[in-house]
This record gives sequence, structure tokens and C-alpha cells, in this order.
Amino acid sequence: MAATPSAQYSLTLRVEIAHRPGMLGRVASAIGEAGGTIGAVDLVQVERDHTIRDITVETGDASDWPRLTEAVGAVSGARVLDTTDRTFSLHVGGKIEIRNKSPLKTRDDLSMAYTPGVARVCRAIHEDPDKAFQYTIKRNTVAVVSDGTAVLGLGDIGPRAAMPVMEGKAMLFKEFGGVDAFPICLDTRSVDDIVGVVRALAPAFGGVNLEDISAPRCFEIEDRLKASLDIPVFHDDQHGTAVVVLAALLNSLRLTGRVIGDLRIVVVGLGAAGVAVTRILLEAGARHIVCCDSHGAVSVDRADYLDGSMPSVKRSVAAVTNLERRSGAVVDVIEGADLLIGVSGADVVPASALARMNPEPIVFALANPDPEVSPEKALQYVRILATGRSDYPNQINNVLCFPGVFRGALDVRAGQITESMKTAAARAIAEIVGDAELREDYIIPSVFNREVAPAVAAAVAAEARASGTAEAGAELGFGSTEEFGAIPGR
Amino acid sequence: MAATPSAQYSLTLRVEIAHRPGMLGRVASAIGEAGGTIGAVDLVQVERDHTIRDITVETGDASDWPRLTEAVGAVSGARVLDTTDRTFSLHVGGKIEIRNKSPLKTRDDLSMAYTPGVARVCRAIHEDPDKAFQYTIKRNTVAVVSDGTAVLGLGDIGPRAAMPVMEGKAMLFKEFGGVDAFPICLDTRSVDDIVGVVRALAPAFGGVNLEDISAPRCFEIEDRLKASLDIPVFHDDQHGTAVVVLAALLNSLRLTGRVIGDLRIVVVGLGAAGVAVTRILLEAGARHIVCCDSHGAVSVDRADYLDGSMPSVKRSVAAVTNLERRSGAVVDVIEGADLLIGVSGADVVPASALARMNPEPIVFALANPDPEVSPEKALQYVRILATGRSDYPNQINNVLCFPGVFRGALDVRAGQITESMKTAAARAIAEIVGDAELREDYIIPSVFNREVAPAVAAAVAAEARASGTAEAGAELGFGSTEEFGAIPGR
Repeated sequence: MAATPSAQYSLTLRVEIAHRPGMLGRVASAIGEAGGTIGAVDLVQVERDHTIRDITVETGDASDWPRLTEAVGAVSGARVLDTTDRTFSLHVGGKIEIRNKSPLKTRDDLSMAYTPGVARVCRAIHEDPDKAFQYTIKRNTVAVVSDGTAVLGLGDIGPRAAMPVMEGKAMLFKEFGGVDAFPICLDTRSVDDIVGVVRALAPAFGGVNLEDISAPRCFEIEDRLKASLDIPVFHDDQHGTAVVVLAALLNSLRLTGRVIGDLRIVVVGLGAAGVAVTRILLEAGARHIVCCDSHGAVSVDRADYLDGSMPSVKRSVAAVTNLERRSGAVVDVIEGADLLIGVSGADVVPASALARMNPEPIVFALANPDPEVSPEKALQYVRILATGRSDYPNQINNVLCFPGVFRGALDVRAGQITESMKTAAARAIAEIVGDAELREDYIIPSVFNREVAPAVAAAVAAEARASGTAEAGAELGFGSTEEFGAIPGR
Repeated sequence: MAATPSAQYSLTLRVEIAHRPGMLGRVASAIGEAGGTIGAVDLVQVERDHTIRDITVETGDASDWPRLTEAVGAVSGARVLDTTDRTFSLHVGGKIEIRNKSPLKTRDDLSMAYTPGVARVCRAIHEDPDKAFQYTIKRNTVAVVSDGTAVLGLGDIGPRAAMPVMEGKAMLFKEFGGVDAFPICLDTRSVDDIVGVVRALAPAFGGVNLEDISAPRCFEIEDRLKASLDIPVFHDDQHGTAVVVLAALLNSLRLTGRVIGDLRIVVVGLGAAGVAVTRILLEAGARHIVCCDSHGAVSVDRADYLDGSMPSVKRSVAAVTNLERRSGAVVDVIEGADLLIGVSGADVVPASALARMNPEPIVFALANPDPEVSPEKALQYVRILATGRSDYPNQINNVLCFPGVFRGALDVRAGQITESMKTAAARAIAEIVGDAELREDYIIPSVFNREVAPAVAAAVAAEARASGTAEAGAELGFGSTEEFGAIPGR
């Protein structure tokens, strides 16, 4: 699969091409023969006997590049002057920046934004700390916190190497939710330290998005932060995934006319995502779930449960799932299942095992970049297939969830993101797909569907209001102040 | 002094004014008589029998506003519809935001900025952590860290109330230095916790600006962070002030033809700024300095030095100053001084005491907003007077220092900001004032002089390079990478 040309491996070649008929065609052919797909072709310079062009080429892997460069160089009359790795180029200097929201050009600007005028604003917040939501970035700012221990499929790569992901996350927050997010990558793995640091940082932030922190530490960190902070704390790897899985499931049920309580479900993988998916499914009414970890089906009959060596998070899952106390590997418990949800690793389920599921089964194989079962092979066995990848239909991607969830929570100044707010988010995502559009290969909207985040935000805010999680008066929003008279919105 | 109209107390009145000759004049007169200074007058709406205007008025204090509003309302044919506190209005929702540096509109954008392409960048940094300076925001991002214990003249107002100042600081960093600064206001006062938190945060940042942390904790926090981090740590209340004081002094010496080693100096106030000013003056060659705290002149003969109760920072100052072991209050040791530097509080020096200084003395009275001695009264006694205020000549303001210092340090990826880099910054600030311009009331450039920060940055970078503080190769800057071929700068 690595051979499919993709933008992530796109290379810009700066090529000097002699003025001879058919030269560009020959260069293009050489690129095609070397396995590259040409994107933009830009003219850089025209000289008397040659032109210089930037040719952007998507390839299947960076290992294709030397071959590609050689192939172009081998064309008589063409010379490669330079190559640019577009992905690395995009990351140079980082991907986000700070911008001032008002000018700072005159002494008057300075005396209002900074000294001496700022003292009046400080004093107002000191007298009523709640005003921090009115007069500081707190109202719209989320910390994206990671320790770099479970980054994408890369694992424990540390805080510095995790930064490009957290910056990317901040971009998504801004682009889709209008939320100002700042990446906080922590140079510590101690649960106590991480909890302490995030608690200390809280004054500047209106919410905390935990990200790529390895299990089981992520559970304790989230629980302790939720208990001690008055702003939402949301571990996206758990709840973002769970919300989007539920959204995809709701639409699968809608399409197939099934009922969640009747569904026989197997969850493969009991890390952060697996635990959260299991919980949201139970919350949504699922009754027959068997969860598997690397030792097979988890149950209260399993030896590590009985001898007390099973970690507490898994114990709590074991206690409320697998009521039939089934045992065995995934290929065993898959027998008779209607829905398989993979949140584990590449190729842990042989495609042939899907034949043992009930008729017209649903499979969400979400391991990234390589799913639990090959989509090409799985398709013959299943009615609905979803993955975490953008190059297959039905991409289950957290981007559908977190920008809208935080947008909604910040808008009503929710103190937390409750189970019912998550369920509301899942419903909102599912409802974006209209009845007329709903099909086996379209159960979930595209990550670029601009309707999703506002719909999720509205649903989350409404649920927070209805359940009393929103702060009274927070919805007055911009412009409400009692300092002196009214302050029209800016 | 509170009566001088200023933008910090500016109010916008939305007034409905009847269509009658001379009406606007009558409204303006009423505003003037009530003590307001009219700025902009904007037309909002024109109706058949009236117009609606926004009149922006600077006043001396917010307590003037009810009187002002009443005065306008008392004009026959005028009606105040609404009032807006412009300073609070400017702060609504905070003053800075996050912006994406590249678009995120297509699947290709996503696959390069985020998954799956970002994994390649993460892997490169994991293999060589130094590449964080190349491919993340670290290269241009500074943490502005405070615990809110010593904010402006307001004192210990806590982290939430300190945020508007730290956001303002971030604005100044961006506006003058092009530095992305993010405010980190910590909900802890423990030295151990603050050191721990900042160390944990370091991966995302290229520098740390400590701000408004009370003495003596600020000294230990800075020392411990400097010892453990490989990025610059700079407590601006200390070093920013010290650098700008030295700049002002260098120009005072240039103007008066004096030599620093001969100068008899009294420093009033031994908080963060006083200690740092004393240190930089000694570094610059001063030999006769007497420092005063609230108990008077500090010396190795003083009872609290002898009995060991004097805090260690003051002990270290006592050990290298006041070689004549003078004792007494400020008004005593001021006798025979050439230079008085106040970094303490309002009105601690009676103007008449300045008569006891040597002829043509220099006085820097930097307490804000109210100086150690009234400028109006001091002027008759002194040759050169500087304050921290913008409404008198010679404003000594840290804004002249920190944006350029961090710009220069980040540009060459300096691991620290050394004494010689600070001195270089002071010289650069002083040199902005040309020989032909130098006068008693112009010894320091304006905070809005756009030449200052680039000059400071260049001087700091050059000094870092010369002294080996800069990271080898850092100056290659954008575009240097060995990933694959060359990456032209973006």
C-alpha cells in the first residue's frame, strides 16, 4: 500500500529544461515511469536556451526519490537543480504563530493594551476571577497536552518529536472550530507531575485536550484533572474516537435498520480508544460487547482477573462486558458477531475470520496507517466497512469531533464534557449525512465537511445548557460587562 | 496627576444629537467643561431629525465618567444612548490569538501538515532532537511565565488577574521582535513547583521570559532554571530594567562627559530590579554604589548582615557595594551622589533631598505609575531626569529591551543570555540616539522607535556568536536540512 503516490511524500523538483520541442513531455514521462504522479508545474524562469520549472510530484515513499531524480536527470536536455521535500518544507519554523488581535502602533494603543490601562482590567479580574473568561484568552483557548509517549503509530517518541503532531492538532482546532489551541509537550512521564503541571497551567486556558499519552497513565491523568479543574478536560484519543465511532455506528444502524441493544459487538484492543469506545457503546444502549486485548477476550473468568493482576481499567471493562464470559482469541469470539471494532494494530484479524460473523456484518478497522484487516480483502465479507484512512470510504477521524466539541463547550463555558454531551456530538455528526445520501460507503461525513463542527458545537452547547453544565450567563458572550455601561462587541 | 486625560480612561459615548445649528459644538463644550478631551468623532447614523455619533473622550479617571455622561445628557437636544469603556472593550476575549501559517483546506494539506505525513517529521526529530528548532515552533516561541505575585504596581493579584499583562507582553514581543510569545500564568507559588513546571514545558519553547514574580523567589527560580535548561531564561523585571537603565546611563555619561567608575551612585530599592541594576552597573565598571532597602543603606556593617538575618541576595549585594560602609536613610546617603536610581515605590524621596546631591545630578525615578520623587518638583534640582512614565521625557521602559534581546538570542539559538549580551543590548539601545540628537530630555529612544529592536537583536546575536553562546550552524536558519536535498525557505 505504501506505493500509492500521496501528498505526504511529495517532492518538488526544480528542473532546467532545454528549449527543444517535446522536452517537458519527455520529463513528464520519465517521472511517470519512475512511479511519480505530477501535480503542479510552475514556471520559475525563462532563459534564451532553457526554462527552469518547479515540478511537484507525489510519490509512494521517500525511497522513490533518488530513482525519480535520476530518471529526470537521465533525460537528455534536462537537469535537476534542486529538490524540496514539501512535507518537511511545510513544517519549517513550525505551523502556528501568535497574532495580535488589535494594533499596537501608538502610545494610546499601548496605554490601553498594556501599561498603565491594563491595570484596570487586572484589578477587575482580581476582584472577580470569573471575569478572566471575559477579558483574557481563557474564553477561547485550549491546551493540547502530550508527553509524547503514544504518538500516532510511532509510539513513545518523546515531547520534542511529538510537537509537529500537537501543532497540527492546534491547526485543526483553529481551522474547524475557531478555537485557539496551544501545544504543550511535557518533558516528564510521571502521572503526578503531568497532573501538577496541567493544574498549574489552567488559569490561562478554557479547556484541556489530552493527546497521545500512553495507557493506562492517560486514564488516571484524565480522571485526576477532571476532579480538580473547573474547565473541560478531554482525552481525545479516548473520547474523540469514541464519539466518531458512535456516529458511524448510529448511521450504520439507520442504514441497516438494526437496534444497538441487539447488536453482538467485538472490540479488538483495550487501550485508550478501546476502553472509551466500549463505554460510549454501553452508554448508548449496547448490551452484548466482548472486548479483546492481546491475550484474547477479557472476562471476569480470565486468570488475570481472578488473580488480581489485570489492570484496574480493564477490570472495570471486564465487569460490565462479556456477560456470557466467552473466552478465546479474536478469531474465536468473532463467531456470531454483528459488529467488529478494531482499535489495536495492523493485521491482527485475518480477513477470512470475517466469514464467521453474522450475515451482513459491520467492520470498523481503525488502526492507522495499517488497519486490523486489509480493506481490500475485508470488503467481500462485510456490508459496511470503515477505517481510519483517508484513502478508503468511511474515514473515522477525530477531526470530526474535537473542534466542535470544544467550540460548543467554550461557547457556553461548560465546566466539563459529560457523557451526554459526547452522545449529542455523535448524533450531530451522524445527522450530517442525510437520509438520501446514506449508503454503505457513506456513513460518516468527510473531515472537510464544514457543516460538521458548527453542528457538533450547537449540539454540545445545547446539551450542556439543558443539563446545567453550562455556566449561567456565559452565553451573553462578547459585550456583556458591568464595568461601566455596555461594551458593544468587537 | 490622575486628572490628566489619558487613553487608558477613554470612553466612547454614543450620543443622539438633534438636528439644530450648533448642537455638536454644545455637546463638545459640555464634554470639555466636564474635564474630557475629545478624540475621534464618528458618525453612526443620520435620521430625519437627529444624528447618532460615537464620541471618544479621554478622561483623567473612570470616576469622571458619570459626571461626563450627565453633562452631555444635560445638553438640551442631546441624549446619551450608550457608553463604552474602550480599555475593557479592547481586552474582551483576550488580545492574542493562534494563527495557522499554512492553509488546511484540502486533503493534501492535511496529509502534509497532519497525518500521515507529519509522522515523517516526528521521526526526524526523534532521531535528532536538535531538529525541533528546525521543524517546530520552538525556534521562534517564548514562554512568558508568571505566578501573578508581583504584577505591575498591583502586587500579588494571582495568575488569572495577571493574564492581561502577560498577553500584553506577548503582543509587544510580536509587534517589536516578531517573536511568538505565549502567556503561562501559573496557579502555584512554590519555587519547586514553578521550576518543575517550566522545565516540563521547555520542549515547545525556544526561551523563557519570567515576569512579575516576587523577590526573593524570582532569583532562585531564575538561577535554577538557567542551570537546568538549554534555552535562554530571562527575568525581565530584573534584566530588562537593568539593560535599559544602563542604556540611559551610557547616554547620560556621553552627554555629561563623565566616567562610570567615578560616579557616586545610590540605588533605592533592592527588589528584583534593584539587584539586577546594581549588578549590571558593577559589570559596566561602576565602583561607588550604595543600595538602600526600606531599612536604609545596605552594608556589611548593618545589624541584619551581622546577625545573618539579611536574605542571601541582599547579602551578596552588600558584599560588593557600599565600600565606605555608609549607613542611614536614602536622604542621608544621597549626600554627594551623582546618580540616584529609584526602583522602589511612590514618593520615597523628598524632592528637596536632591539638593544634597553633587552638582548637575542624574535622577532615574522609575517607580510606576508614581515615581519616587515628583518629576515636576525634581526638575529644578537635576540635570537629567528619567522616569518609567510615557508622559514625561526619557521613559525607561523594558519594551526597549526584551523583544530585541529574545529576537537576537533566538536568531542564533543562544543557550543563554549572558552578561555580555545584556551589555551589548544596552549599548545598542543607547547608540540609537545620535550625537546630534542627544540632550538632557532625550537620552533614551522612544518605545515606538522601530530601529531599536533590530539593533538590539543584531548586537545580542553578534555578541552571542563572538562569545560562543550561539549554537553552531543555527544561523543557517530556514532552509538548511539534510532530509533530502535542500529546502528553499518559505
